Amino acid sequence: MEGLQVRMAPPVDDGHVSVARLSGYWYIGCESDALDKAPMALELLGTPLVLFRDDQGVASALLDRCPHRNVPLSLGQVLPTGRLECSYHGWQFDRSGQCMEVPGLCTDRLVEGRRAPSYPVVEQDGFVWIYATPDARPTTRPFPLPHSSAAGYTTVTRMVEVEGTVHAAAENALDVPHTAYLHRGLFSGGKKNEIRAMVRRWHDRVECEYIGEPRPPGIAARILSPSGGEVQHWDRFYLPSVAQVEYRLGSENHFLVTTVMTPVSDFRTRMFAIISFNLRIPARLVLPVIEPLAMRIFRQDAEMLRIQTDAIRRFGGEQYMSTEIDVLGPHIWRLLKRAERDELEPADAPDLEREFKMLV
Amino acid sequence: MEGLQVRMAPPVDDGHVSVARLSGYWYIGCESDALDKAPMALELLGTPLVLFRDDQGVASALLDRCPHRNVPLSLGQVLPTGRLECSYHGWQFDRSGQCMEVPGLCTDRLVEGRRAPSYPVVEQDGFVWIYATPDARPTTRPFPLPHSSAAGYTTVTRMVEVEGTVHAAAENALDVPHTAYLHRGLFSGGKKNEIRAMVRRWHDRVECEYIGEPRPPGIAARILSPSGGEVQHWDRFYLPSVAQVEYRLGSENHFLVTTVMTPVSDFRTRMFAIISFNLRIPARLVLPVIEPLAMRIFRQDAEMLRIQTDAIRRFGGEQYMSTEIDVLGPHIWRLLKRAERDELEPADAPDLEREFKMLV
Amino acid sequence: MEGLQVRMAPPVDDGHVSVARLSGYWYIGCESDALDKAPMALELLGTPLVLFRDDQGVASALLDRCPHRNVPLSLGQVLPTGRLECSYHGWQFDRSGQCMEVPGLCTDRLVEGRRAPSYPVVEQDGFVWIYATPDARPTTRPFPLPHSSAAGYTTVTRMVEVEGTVHAAAENALDVPHTAYLHRGLFSGGKKNEIRAMVRRWHDRVECEYIGEPRPPGIAARILSPSGGEVQHWDRFYLPSVAQVEYRLGSENHFLVTTVMTPVSDFRTRMFAIISFNLRIPARLVLPVIEPLAMRIFRQDAEMLRIQTDAIRRFGGEQYMSTEIDVLGPHIWRLLKRAERDELEPADAPDLEREFKMLV
Repeated sequence: MEGLQVRMAPPVDDGHVSVARLSGYWYIGCESDALDKAPMALELLGTPLVLFRDDQGVASALLDRCPHRNVPLSLGQVLPTGRLECSYHGWQFDRSGQCMEVPGLCTDRLVEGRRAPSYPVVEQDGFVWIYATPDARPTTRPFPLPHSSAAGYTTVTRMVEVEGTVHAAAENALDVPHTAYLHRGLFSGGKKNEIRAMVRRWHDRVECEYIGEPRPPGIAARILSPSGGEVQHWDRFYLPSVAQVEYRLGSENHFLVTTVMTPVSDFRTRMFAIISFNLRIPARLVLPVIEPLAMRIFRQDAEMLRIQTDAIRRFGGEQYMSTEIDVLGPHIWRLLKRAERDELEPADAPDLEREFKMLV
Repeated sequence: MEGLQVRMAPPVDDGHVSVARLSGYWYIGCESDALDKAPMALELLGTPLVLFRDDQGVASALLDRCPHRNVPLSLGQVLPTGRLECSYHGWQFDRSGQCMEVPGLCTDRLVEGRRAPSYPVVEQDGFVWIYATPDARPTTRPFPLPHSSAAGYTTVTRMVEVEGTVHAAAENALDVPHTAYLHRGLFSGGKKNEIRAMVRRWHDRVECEYIGEPRPPGIAARILSPSGGEVQHWDRFYLPSVAQVEYRLGSENHFLVTTVMTPVSDFRTRMFAIISFNLRIPARLVLPVIEPLAMRIFRQDAEMLRIQTDAIRRFGGEQYMSTEIDVLGPHIWRLLKRAERDELEPADAPDLEREFKMLV
Repeated sequence: MEGLQVRMAPPVDDGHVSVARLSGYWYIGCESDALDKAPMALELLGTPLVLFRDDQGVASALLDRCPHRNVPLSLGQVLPTGRLECSYHGWQFDRSGQCMEVPGLCTDRLVEGRRAPSYPVVEQDGFVWIYATPDARPTTRPFPLPHSSAAGYTTVTRMVEVEGTVHAAAENALDVPHTAYLHRGLFSGGKKNEIRAMVRRWHDRVECEYIGEPRPPGIAARILSPSGGEVQHWDRFYLPSVAQVEYRLGSENHFLVTTVMTPVSDFRTRMFAIISFNLRIPARLVLPVIEPLAMRIFRQDAEMLRIQTDAIRRFGGEQYMSTEIDVLGPHIWRLLKRAERDELEPADAPDLEREFKMLV
């Protein structure tokens, strides 16, 4: 249709879309346990990668394209020598991406142009992390996942995927007002209470503390604290893509969800949620109730993100109108854009503190 | 594929496509009966709209995008207050598109930027009509449907949809020569007769009167007039998108089909056909015969329009070669383009009269 | 998504793709037997064509678009007069594409603008060949298929289609090194031998002769020559799109596969393989073994070409790194590009001769 002298159907706002491509950061590729010797294809920031372990068990990531005839290396196999062999002509690559063998070739064997670009990999906290810039020497480490081995704590990990930008997924994960509508009946629905919200933004993260939040009337809260009490609640976002929700209810309930997001492509985000909790009810009783509830909430969010993404694409961009109770979304976007433009200036103190009231 | 240095496969004529976007006009959204309190999503000129009735039963149309986070409002519900509530965060809109409530927000409530664009709506002749320009004050009224309550008349309404432009659908609906080929056996097929055709074009409509047309030999005609006789036949097009076919056979048979077309998007047209007739055979006997026949004809036309649209897209545009027996199509296109350029100069007299002969 | 301010996901190399569009050449449309009086739709270089036989059995090819309202002529029928009739309004075309009849029209009947562009057609060697430039007078003939009626020879023809450019399909068909990997176990896999390869390139073709190739250890070879012996092996490419593989094993085995490729569109290639052989084992014993084996090889190649094409599209172009044992691919591309730029200078002598060693 490119050649047709037909304009796009109105209204097409030549709009902005909240996509930031932060390549100088670490993202989770997969859980460490999920990667054995079979090469694994995955996508990061729209780029096809192949993850594999060599003969020494070291995990590596290469661009998933054989430099020879461009077939994905992930269709090949890892040889006993630890080299990744392409399935088309058998070219062999070591974990640095260097082509070590061109079967049949009698002359020169090591030629730089035959390299596959290599992405830095580290394993930490049970995950394989990939640095999103090829052939780089990162000076940073992946986001340190909170220790979850303390006594009384149970930790579970879940991986889900949504059709939406990292920004949309993070805003949704840290957004309070939608719970009363999208998750009507699961979270709340009763009389609203005025609470205080305190936002603090640093150069690389933003946090909102909610003060005065009563125990909500929904099912989830009743399980957490049968005797009522005040909630302590923090929502946090860390660059490049970590959303964290922390709840404390009295001294005996602690609930911490850290969601590390991988930008698969502009409109697809993979979410690794590390859920740690220490509740007054034993985990083995809580889990069978919480898990289906959490998955139901997640499916409602995922469906809404898909609908939102479809609408953004259809209208040619976003036309967002925010209020102050869209607490973290605009700040997250500012952090992402500053990071994309490489304008972060490390500082210890917050560059913004703001307090306001909202009804929840 | 945008980045690939591969030209489109030939032949790509950088062609014109008969798409006109007339936004300063009224179009049918739906039958009045079809709209109850549930919001209804529809598309007009490529724009997603939501139709709903408020607590007083007044029909309204808004752009189907919540100004907050761009989710379609049609996924929400109409509250007992008559406001349309978004399903994501519960923002509430009145029938003018003004946001009346942001749940959870403690401060200012009425902000202009929170409006959803509103499209004028009137109900007339049993249909909900929408004016295709948002936030406008129309000075015109919808096309007045011919009165069909006269004694002896039966009127039925049918809604169908075709994959084709308004121009292609209107030309097809008013085209005589294709009936002997596409609808072979249903309409005619016998010896051809030379008749006269008289075209008259005004600033906002065009009509062709066929003079000397004998009763055709097909089944449909035999039902209309078992005794034979001369046919009076007019085909008419009215801006922006009304096609009308009128037949009289003797003094006792009258058949009038008024098709009001809604440009859903460039290549999708919804057709509301209002069929009125007064025949020498009682309607209850005629309808069971006519309806399946009409639907068969329609399906053949719809299939051909889809095929034609596919070909136009594939070739990158239209390459039409017309003759004088393509009676109304070129005039319809001229009317549409003049209207799109806003070059209509109202006048009582026709700006063109032309007579010629054709074989039918 | 065109209006969105989102760049394509990286890495997008603004890459070259090996698509050449050689329109001044003959291509196979179909086998002669496959074309009877029903019009046949096919695509050549991305252009929809209709093939049909008139009342005298003469095959013709027209652009598959009625000049009137652009509906495909292939949906029509051939009349007893030999004319092709459009299914929408009944326009009639002779084999030169001239419109001979506009049903219903009383005035002028022969108008040049009503022509459908006509593509030269000849039948040769059991195939209908189409010249890819409309309304041209070719001064060349189709590629002469090798005579296959010699005593002792069996010839079979197979038509298959791959998702890949002509260049990719031809390179794959004439590539030796991939057989040990993609077709592992079917072709070879044993100890490698150093052989000599001699490339000769003319203005319109390129050939590689493999010298010193031992009988490979695979199944296929054992069938060809149970007693071992040296293989004579030539791979050849002829402009615009003929790939030929010839094997001789001793004096009694001769195997010749001539694959004539039709560029259906940029990334779709139809392959007519004419397989002639004269082996020491009777054809009726060989065929049941060879055919499933050949089809299995073909399916592996077709799957790999599809994967390669997907990768090229995804990355926005090719990034090929060749070595000298990518024997013919780079030469084929050079021939195709010179032909596309019309820079062929006929000459009897090769413009390139090169010898090198490789392991097979």
